[in-house]
Amino acid sequence: MNRVKALVAGCLMAVLAVPSAFAAVDREKLLTEPGVFGTFAVFKVDGDWWKLDKAARGSAAAEVKAVFQKHADNVATDTYLLRGLSEKADFFVRVHSIEMLNNQNFLVDLMGTTLGKYLQNTNTFNGITKKANYVPGFPDDLKAAMKTPPDPGAKPYVIIVPIRKDAEWWITGQDGRGAMMKEHTDATVAYLKAVKRKLYHASGLDDLDFITYFETGKLDDFNNLVIGLERVKENRHNKQFGSPTLLGTIRPLDEILEILAR
Amino acid sequence: MNRVKALVAGCLMAVLAVPSAFAAVDREKLLTEPGVFGTFAVFKVDGDWWKLDKAARGSAAAEVKAVFQKHADNVATDTYLLRGLSEKADFFVRVHSIEMLNNQNFLVDLMGTTLGKYLQNTNTFNGITKKANYVPGFPDDLKAAMKTPPDPGAKPYVIIVPIRKDAEWWITGQDGRGAMMKEHTDATVAYLKAVKRKLYHASGLDDLDFITYFETGKLDDFNNLVIGLERVKENRHNKQFGSPTLLGTIRPLDEILEILAR
Amino acid sequence: MNRVKALVAGCLMAVLAVPSAFAAVDREKLLTEPGVFGTFAVFKVDGDWWKLDKAARGSAAAEVKAVFQKHADNVATDTYLLRGLSEKADFFVRVHSIEMLNNQNFLVDLMGTTLGKYLQNTNTFNGITKKANYVPGFPDDLKAAMKTPPDPGAKPYVIIVPIRKDAEWWITGQDGRGAMMKEHTDATVAYLKAVKRKLYHASGLDDLDFITYFETGKLDDFNNLVIGLERVKENRHNKQFGSPTLLGTIRPLDEILEILAR
Amino acid sequence: MNRVKALVAGCLMAVLAVPSAFAAVDREKLLTEPGVFGTFAVFKVDGDWWKLDKAARGSAAAEVKAVFQKHADNVATDTYLLRGLSEKADFFVRVHSIEMLNNQNFLVDLMGTTLGKYLQNTNTFNGITKKANYVPGFPDDLKAAMKTPPDPGAKPYVIIVPIRKDAEWWITGQDGRGAMMKEHTDATVAYLKAVKRKLYHASGLDDLDFITYFETGKLDDFNNLVIGLERVKENRHNKQFGSPTLLGTIRPLDEILEILAR
Amino acid sequence: MNRVKALVAGCLMAVLAVPSAFAAVDREKLLTEPGVFGTFAVFKVDGDWWKLDKAARGSAAAEVKAVFQKHADNVATDTYLLRGLSEKADFFVRVHSIEMLNNQNFLVDLMGTTLGKYLQNTNTFNGITKKANYVPGFPDDLKAAMKTPPDPGAKPYVIIVPIRKDAEWWITGQDGRGAMMKEHTDATVAYLKAVKRKLYHASGLDDLDFITYFETGKLDDFNNLVIGLERVKENRHNKQFGSPTLLGTIRPLDEILEILAR
Repeated sequence: MNRVKALVAGCLMAVLAVPSAFAAVDREKLLTEPGVFGTFAVFKVDGDWWKLDKAARGSAAAEVKAVFQKHADNVATDTYLLRGLSEKADFFVRVHSIEMLNNQNFLVDLMGTTLGKYLQNTNTFNGITKKANYVPGFPDDLKAAMKTPPDPGAKPYVIIVPIRKDAEWWITGQDGRGAMMKEHTDATVAYLKAVKRKLYHASGLDDLDFITYFETGKLDDFNNLVIGLERVKENRHNKQFGSPTLLGTIRPLDEILEILAR
Repeated sequence: MNRVKALVAGCLMAVLAVPSAFAAVDREKLLTEPGVFGTFAVFKVDGDWWKLDKAARGSAAAEVKAVFQKHADNVATDTYLLRGLSEKADFFVRVHSIEMLNNQNFLVDLMGTTLGKYLQNTNTFNGITKKANYVPGFPDDLKAAMKTPPDPGAKPYVIIVPIRKDAEWWITGQDGRGAMMKEHTDATVAYLKAVKRKLYHASGLDDLDFITYFETGKLDDFNNLVIGLERVKENRHNKQFGSPTLLGTIRPLDEILEILAR
Repeated sequence: MNRVKALVAGCLMAVLAVPSAFAAVDREKLLTEPGVFGTFAVFKVDGDWWKLDKAARGSAAAEVKAVFQKHADNVATDTYLLRGLSEKADFFVRVHSIEMLNNQNFLVDLMGTTLGKYLQNTNTFNGITKKANYVPGFPDDLKAAMKTPPDPGAKPYVIIVPIRKDAEWWITGQDGRGAMMKEHTDATVAYLKAVKRKLYHASGLDDLDFITYFETGKLDDFNNLVIGLERVKENRHNKQFGSPTLLGTIRPLDEILEILAR
Repeated sequence: MNRVKALVAGCLMAVLAVPSAFAAVDREKLLTEPGVFGTFAVFKVDGDWWKLDKAARGSAAAEVKAVFQKHADNVATDTYLLRGLSEKADFFVRVHSIEMLNNQNFLVDLMGTTLGKYLQNTNTFNGITKKANYVPGFPDDLKAAMKTPPDPGAKPYVIIVPIRKDAEWWITGQDGRGAMMKEHTDATVAYLKAVKRKLYHASGLDDLDFITYFETGKLDDFNNLVIGLERVKENRHNKQFGSPTLLGTIRPLDEILEILAR
Repeated sequence: MNRVKALVAGCLMAVLAVPSAFAAVDREKLLTEPGVFGTFAVFKVDGDWWKLDKAARGSAAAEVKAVFQKHADNVATDTYLLRGLSEKADFFVRVHSIEMLNNQNFLVDLMGTTLGKYLQNTNTFNGITKKANYVPGFPDDLKAAMKTPPDPGAKPYVIIVPIRKDAEWWITGQDGRGAMMKEHTDATVAYLKAVKRKLYHASGLDDLDFITYFETGKLDDFNNLVIGLERVKENRHNKQFGSPTLLGTIRPLDEILEILAR
C-alpha cells in the first residue's frame, strides 16, 4: 500500500511509456514490427550547462521540442531519466524509424540545439528488430506461456542491458543454441506479467550483439528475473552483460527538460 | 591506549553512524527489513567548486540540508567521507527507501542544488535487501554464532565492496552454493564482533550482483577478515571483488559540508 | 517503397562515395591498388567549438577546404559523418596516399586550422593495402563468386571494424588459416551485392592487425553478414573485433562543415 | 665514477630519505613496527595551477608546510617526485600513523590548501604493516641472509609496485604458499644490499593485496631483482603486478614545492 | 620513383635521426652501450595552447630550446612527431643518460617551460640498455646474419612497441627462451636492412618488460616484419604487445616547435 502511494505521490512521472506528443509517424507499427532500426542515444549534461542562467536554460527547452516536432514524421521517440540512478548519464532517448539515417538526422539536429551543445553523448547503441529466431522451435506450452500479457499496471522503470556473446555461442549450431534459449525462456515465464521486454539485434551496427530493453513496475521481480537468467547455461556465453546496465525511469520530454531547467 | 586517544581526539567524527537529523521515515525498519531499495551515490567535487568564494560555498550548505529535509519522509540517508582515503571520490550518500523512485527523486534534487552542480557522480550502486538465502541450510552452531552482536564500541570506518559472480557460480545448484557459503560464513565468525555487515542484491539493477557494506573500528581485523574470505573456494567465483573498494569514515552531513566549505 | 523515399528525401546525403572535388592525385589507383597507405583519422568536436559565434565557425570552413585543396596532389580523401550514430566521434576522414608521410602532413595541416584546434582526435587507424593473401588457394567457384559486382544502388552507410587476431591465428600455418578463411569467405558470398568491402593490413602500424571497411545501403543485410562471420571458426581467433565499431554515413566535406557551422 | 658524479651533481636531491623536519611523532617506531597504517597519496597538478602567477604559487607553499606541521604529532610523512619519470602523477606523499583516521585527516587538510585545490588525487593506496608471515618457516641460512643490511650509500630512487594475487594463491595452504615464498625470497638475496624493501598488506583496504615499496640507488640492480622475481612460480599468481608501477625520486617537501612554484 | 619524390618533396623532415644540435654529452656512446637509461616522454598539447596568440607560442620555443641546451651535458635527446598518425599524442622525446635522475631533471625542466605547462604527459616509458641476452647461444650463421648493416637510405619513420611477457615466459628456463628467441630472430633477418632496432629492458622501471624501438623508411617491410614476429611461438607469451604502438616520424626539435607555433 505504502509502496503504491510512493509510486503515485512521489513524482509526476508518467505511469505509462508516453508516446511523444508530436507522433505523426506510425508509432504502433514501429514499436512492434521487425525490420525497424532503434537507436538509444544516452546523454550527460556538461557542468557548464548549469552555469547558464535559468532563463537561458528554460528557453532552450522550446528549441528541443521543435526538433522533436520537426522529425515526428520520420522517427518515434521515447525519453527516460537516468539521473540519480546511474552515474553514467542523465537521460536517454530511444529513437525508432524505418531507416537508420532518420535516426541520425534527428540526433544531429538534437545535438545542434543550444542544449545539445552542452550534452556529452556518453553512449549510443544501434540495433534492428527481427522476427523471433528460436521461438518457432519451442514446445507448444512454452509458446502459449510466452503470450501472457503484461500486467496493466504502471511500469515506470526502464532497464537497458547490452549483450555480447562469445565466439562459442555463435559457432554452436541452431539446435544447440535453441536448446539453451529454451532454458533461458523457461526462466522468464514467471516474470512475463511484471516485466515487458524488447530485443534489438546489433551485430555489426555496434560493439554488441543485442540490446535488451525492459520496462517494469517491480524492481524486485526484475532482480529475480535476472538472477534466473544468470542460472542458465546460455549465461556462460555472455562475454558482455550490461557494462553499462542503465537503470532509469520513463519520463515525458517535458519533465526531463524541466529538471534540466531548474 | 594511544590508539583509542587518536580515535577520540583526532577529529569530530561521529562515533556511531549518525541518523539524519531530519529522519521522519521509519529508519529502523528501512535499515533492517528485506525488500528495501538502497542506492549508494558517490561524488567527487569538481575543481571549479573551490574557486567559488567561501561565502558562496557556505550558503550552498543550507540548500543541501533543505533537500535532505524535504525528502526525509521518503528516504533514510547516511553520509560518508572518502576524501583522503580514496582517489575515486570525496564522499557518498547511502539512501534507503521502499521504492527506488524515491531514491532517484531525492538524488535529482540533491544534484540540482548549487553544490550538486559542482558534483561529479563518479559511481552509483543500486541494490535491494532480501532475506538470507543460505542461512536456513546452515548447521545450528553456525546459525547461533551468526547471532553474535557487534561490539558496542565506535565503528567509524566504512568499506563498500561491490561484487560480481561468474557464470559458474550461478549455474552451480543451491546445495553447491550453500556449501561454499557455509565455508565463507565460517571464515567470518571470528570477526562478527568487530565488523558490522549489510548485503544488497544488485543483479539487473546495476553491473553487479552484490553490494557488500561494512562498518568497523578495527581495520586490522577487517583486513584479516577479507584475507579469510579470499581463502575460501567461493572466492574463485568472484569475477569482480571491489574495483572500486571504497574506504572512508562515517561523518554527519554537517561535517562533510563544513569540509567542502572551508 | 517508403524506405526508398526515406533514403531519398531524408537528407542531402550523397548517394555515392563522393570523391573530393579537388582530387588531382590518381584517386582510382589509390583506391584499388596494393601498397597504398590508408589513415582513418577520427574526430570529436570539442564543446568549446560551439561557443564560438556562427560567423567564426562558418569562416573556419574555408580554411579547412584550403587544406584539402593544398594536399590534393598527394592524398585522396573521403569524409564521413558519425555524429548521431556513435558516441565516440563526430566525423572521420579516410586518407590514401603512396607514402604514410603524406597522410601525416595532410592531417597535421588539418589539425592546425581554426577548426582543427577544436578537434579531439579520438582514434587514428593506420594500414596498408595488399594483394589478397588467401584467394589464390580458393576453389574456382568461390573465386568466381567473389567477382560478383556490388549492386549499383546507393550505399550511404559506412562501417569500420578494426580487428586483432590472437597468437594462435598467426602461429597456425598458411593452409590452416586458408581453410578458415575459405569458410569465412563462403559466408560473405550472399552479401557481395549489398556490401562493398575494403581491407587494410595494420600489424605494427597500429594496435591492430586489420582495418575492415564497409559501405552498404542495407544495414539489415550488413547485420546478417556479421552474424554469418561470427558463426565461422575463424571468429575464435578475433581477440578484438570492433571496439570501436564505427557506424556512420558517407557525406561530402561541405555537408559536414555545414553541420559544424550551424 | 661519472655515474657517481651525476648522482651528486645532477640535483639537490636528498641522498637519504629525509624525515619531515617537523616530525614529533615517533617516526622510527612507525617505520619499523607492525600494526601501522600507511597511505600513499599520489597527486598530479592541474593545468590551471600553472596559470596562477608565481607569487601566488610561492605563497601557497607556506600553507602546505603549515599542514605538515599541524599533523606532525599524529603522522610521519615522506615526499617523492614522480614528475618526469611517470605520466601518471607529479608527486606522492607516504603517510604513516597508528590509526588510518589520522592519515585521512592530514590528507583532507592537505587537499584543502590553495595548492591542494589544484591537485588531482590520481591514486591512493592504503595498507597496514604486519609481522613477516612466511619467514619463521624459512631455513636458517635464508633467515640469516635476510639480515644483510642495505649498503650505506645513497638510495635516491623509489619504486612502488601494487600487487593483487589470484584466488588460487589464497586458496593454496600456508605450506604451499610458504614454499613459493621461499623461492621468491631466495631470488632477492643478491639484491638485499642494493635495494631496501617495505611491505604493506592491503586486502579489503584497497583494490590490492599488497603495496610493495622499494628504495635503491641502482636501478640496474632493481631491474634484475624484478626479473628474478618474475622467474619464480609465485609470479603465476600475480593477477596485478604494478599498473601502476610508480618510479620516482625521494625529495624533501621543500624541493617539491620549489619545483611547483617555479 | 614517385615514392622517393614524395619522401623528398613532401616535407622538411630530416632524413636521418638528427642528433640534438647542442649535444655535448657523448651521444655515440649513449646510443650504443649497455647500462644506459632511456626515457620516452610522450606529450599531447592541451587545447588551451592553441588559444594563446601566435607570438606567445613562438616565444615559448626559445625557452624550450634553452632547456635542451642546459641539459646537453647530461642527456642525449631525440624528438619525434606523432601528430596526424596517432590519436594518443603529438610528439615524444627520447632521452638517454648514464643515470635516470638526469632524465628526470631534464624532463622536469622541460615540463616547467611555458609550453610544458600546456603539455599533457600521456605516456612515459623507462628502460635500460643491456648486452644481448640470447645472441651468444645462437648458431654462427645467425650471428653473422645479425651483423647485416641497415641500408644507408633515409629511415624517417619511428615505431615504439612496448611489450610485457606472461609469467610462463619468465618461468621457462634460459634454454627454452633461447630456442624461442632464435626462431624470433630468424624471422627478422630478412628485414635487418630496412629496419633499425633498439631494445630497452623495463621490468620494475615501468609496467612493461621491454620497450622496442624501430626506425625504417619502408613501412610495408615493417608491417611484414611484425607479421613474421606474430607467427613465432614466442608471440604466445606477449601479454602486451603495443597498446600503445606509437607510429611517427623523426623530426628535429625546431620543426616540431614550428608546427606547434603555427
